[in-house]
Amino acid sequence: MSHALVFQTDFGLVDGAVCAMYGVANTVDPSLRIFDLTHDIPQYNIWEASYRLRQTIDYWPEGTVFVSVVDPGVGSTRRSVIAKTQRNQYIITPDNGTLTHIKKIAGIKSVRVFDEAANKLPSAGESYTFYGRDIYAYTGARLAAGIIDFEQFGNNVPVDSIVELPIIPSYREKDKVIGMIDILDVRFGNLWTNIDHNLFHQLDVGHGDRLEVTIKNDTRNVYKNTMAFARSFAAVAIGEPLIYVNSLQNIGVAINQGSFAKAYNIGTGTSWHIALRKV
Amino acid sequence: MSHALVFQTDFGLVDGAVCAMYGVANTVDPSLRIFDLTHDIPQYNIWEASYRLRQTIDYWPEGTVFVSVVDPGVGSTRRSVIAKTQRNQYIITPDNGTLTHIKKIAGIKSVRVFDEAANKLPSAGESYTFYGRDIYAYTGARLAAGIIDFEQFGNNVPVDSIVELPIIPSYREKDKVIGMIDILDVRFGNLWTNIDHNLFHQLDVGHGDRLEVTIKNDTRNVYKNTMAFARSFAAVAIGEPLIYVNSLQNIGVAINQGSFAKAYNIGTGTSWHIALRKV
Amino acid sequence: MSHALVFQTDFGLVDGAVCAMYGVANTVDPSLRIFDLTHDIPQYNIWEASYRLRQTIDYWPEGTVFVSVVDPGVGSTRRSVIAKTQRNQYIITPDNGTLTHIKKIAGIKSVRVFDEAANKLPSAGESYTFYGRDIYAYTGARLAAGIIDFEQFGNNVPVDSIVELPIIPSYREKDKVIGMIDILDVRFGNLWTNIDHNLFHQLDVGHGDRLEVTIKNDTRNVYKNTMAFARSFAAVAIGEPLIYVNSLQNIGVAINQGSFAKAYNIGTGTSWHIALRKV
Repeated sequence: MSHALVFQTDFGLVDGAVCAMYGVANTVDPSLRIFDLTHDIPQYNIWEASYRLRQTIDYWPEGTVFVSVVDPGVGSTRRSVIAKTQRNQYIITPDNGTLTHIKKIAGIKSVRVFDEAANKLPSAGESYTFYGRDIYAYTGARLAAGIIDFEQFGNNVPVDSIVELPIIPSYREKDKVIGMIDILDVRFGNLWTNIDHNLFHQLDVGHGDRLEVTIKNDTRNVYKNTMAFARSFAAVAIGEPLIYVNSLQNIGVAINQGSFAKAYNIGTGTSWHIALRKV
Repeated sequence: MSHALVFQTDFGLVDGAVCAMYGVANTVDPSLRIFDLTHDIPQYNIWEASYRLRQTIDYWPEGTVFVSVVDPGVGSTRRSVIAKTQRNQYIITPDNGTLTHIKKIAGIKSVRVFDEAANKLPSAGESYTFYGRDIYAYTGARLAAGIIDFEQFGNNVPVDSIVELPIIPSYREKDKVIGMIDILDVRFGNLWTNIDHNLFHQLDVGHGDRLEVTIKNDTRNVYKNTMAFARSFAAVAIGEPLIYVNSLQNIGVAINQGSFAKAYNIGTGTSWHIALRKV
Repeated sequence: MSHALVFQTDFGLVDGAVCAMYGVANTVDPSLRIFDLTHDIPQYNIWEASYRLRQTIDYWPEGTVFVSVVDPGVGSTRRSVIAKTQRNQYIITPDNGTLTHIKKIAGIKSVRVFDEAANKLPSAGESYTFYGRDIYAYTGARLAAGIIDFEQFGNNVPVDSIVELPIIPSYREKDKVIGMIDILDVRFGNLWTNIDHNLFHQLDVGHGDRLEVTIKNDTRNVYKNTMAFARSFAAVAIGEPLIYVNSLQNIGVAINQGSFAKAYNIGTGTSWHIALRKV
């Protein structure tokens, strides 16, 4: 059986772009099993594309082929690459930072650069703006179908040559753990930090213990209050804030059945700092 | 061939949550056929989750496995159940009211409660907030793939023990039929009532007959006017209101190519009452 | 292997309508491979439904069955048809203009009208408002599964009898090419014109050459400025406008990483005229 093919883009689903990618994959091999990660990455947001891959990849089998196309530099000299992870999954993407979290967390064994012109859908013609369809979906389908073989495809390059976005590390400082707000659990407005549950547990906190949460961005203090560390949302009252271990085993901050992000206008990225102190 | 696996959640498709569920199912059995009901249930809206199951289930084959995760009580003591319908379809869900309409309309033959800890994705770790991925998708995939057998899984409990949301019955009173507005045909703004076409036909109305439609909520009268009972939208002018038999064979109220719900700010639920009287 | 079945509607994905269509197709043949074009066609917008078919169909294999349901006249006397394209793909749709672009660009070999009552899902009952589920998904699934045969199904009618929306041709006038704005690349705000790259190249322009772009609608001049013809977005600065060959090999107008449509409030359709003049 061929490997699953998983698409991620910032194209949205309101027009025919993603459907053209499905069609290309079907033309390569009608038996391919095609899935979507998301097509609602905010336009050009490479950080979020990188994070969504890291959020999902561990739950897919070996051999799965991910195609991620958030590509503000389409048609420029940025490289097109296939990365192979420690768990033998593949990611085909422009090399623009999309592999940042996968490299750091899942681990990348090997990367190959491939030539765009030589691996372009034969019917693509003069268009140089839709590499998602003409190059990435086409190449991803051929890899998932076993038509091309990773080890023979393109040219091997050092894993260290991958473009990476800056990541701020999380760390402990006495009775505090400090990190950044990586991303939102969008629909529910929960904050997902880069503080791993193991680092957090160095504070020696148990369920029900209270901590002081401080959130700052580069211009001001945004939030400072105490809340409980809870096993799950149901452990606190509706409308009450909580600290919890999220589904990636990092620390999250939320309001039970409310939106913490909307309540306090919280953003994400390297300028959004968070500290948790045991009280 | 394994049974189709159909997912419904309130997670949205903008992040990786649903894709992680697909991945878990693929890891259980890569040959599973996975479909979506919707992932745009308004957050925590159990009523709508229940209704969307009832809207779709009759169109799926026997053996289909539905996984519905709208779970404001995730991590609480609410039960996790698998229900088997009269037509031998399965629904895996937190037992929080999600089975209300299916029990009443499709009919449930048998329900089994299962232990969450014993049926958790082995790699889920310390997280207790994403049962959609770790427990429901995982268990649904194993049921659809035939790895677990309904009759041997968990513990049988009485069908009457299922949690149900309150439903207001519809009824006839002389020349009127009276009911509630169950839900909207969201994108088109049509009202879907709980008045069955058989009850409505007790008024002895034919296509083209006019009826007076009265809509109230708990605080005020919202609408009172007459309109025709039409065979289809095309039978009235563009912009004209109509009464019709909707795709679930209940009575609907609409404006042809307009939004009745937006035009008159109509809501849904047990506080939204509707009466139709033959004139 | 059965043929791929591709659905397009204006139903959205927030309720159960599309899932009921998947269910009908699964009931016809559980081995069918089902894909989505888009379900976010603006309500009743037949032009856009027609265009999205044309945007995607060339990328799908022979034999693919498209079901497109944007049907403001549901229940009226408009015909239900199956068209067979020059490349032996099938489109099942109400005959309301949805085939406009396919007929003009992909080419239609043969059209058959079929009886709705005779080809209705047996369980559909008294409802006459959801032909997407009861007639089109059902018939599309039976065609994709090989249960019905195009040549034997319904009645052959002349290709010229297909309902077509008005299309304004593009043309050259001395040093100008003139056309209309067909549609937007919605999420990115790029304008897609009906000016083919071959017509454009009659102006003898090369990458880097500048052209004057004039946009008018029926009431006013909307835009007049010069910009470069670029091979791809990356060839101009971020925030700079450009003319380019889009993924359908027509001329597009965009702002690199910005939205041209939002910047100047540009609409689409036959009242939106565009001219490009070499300077």
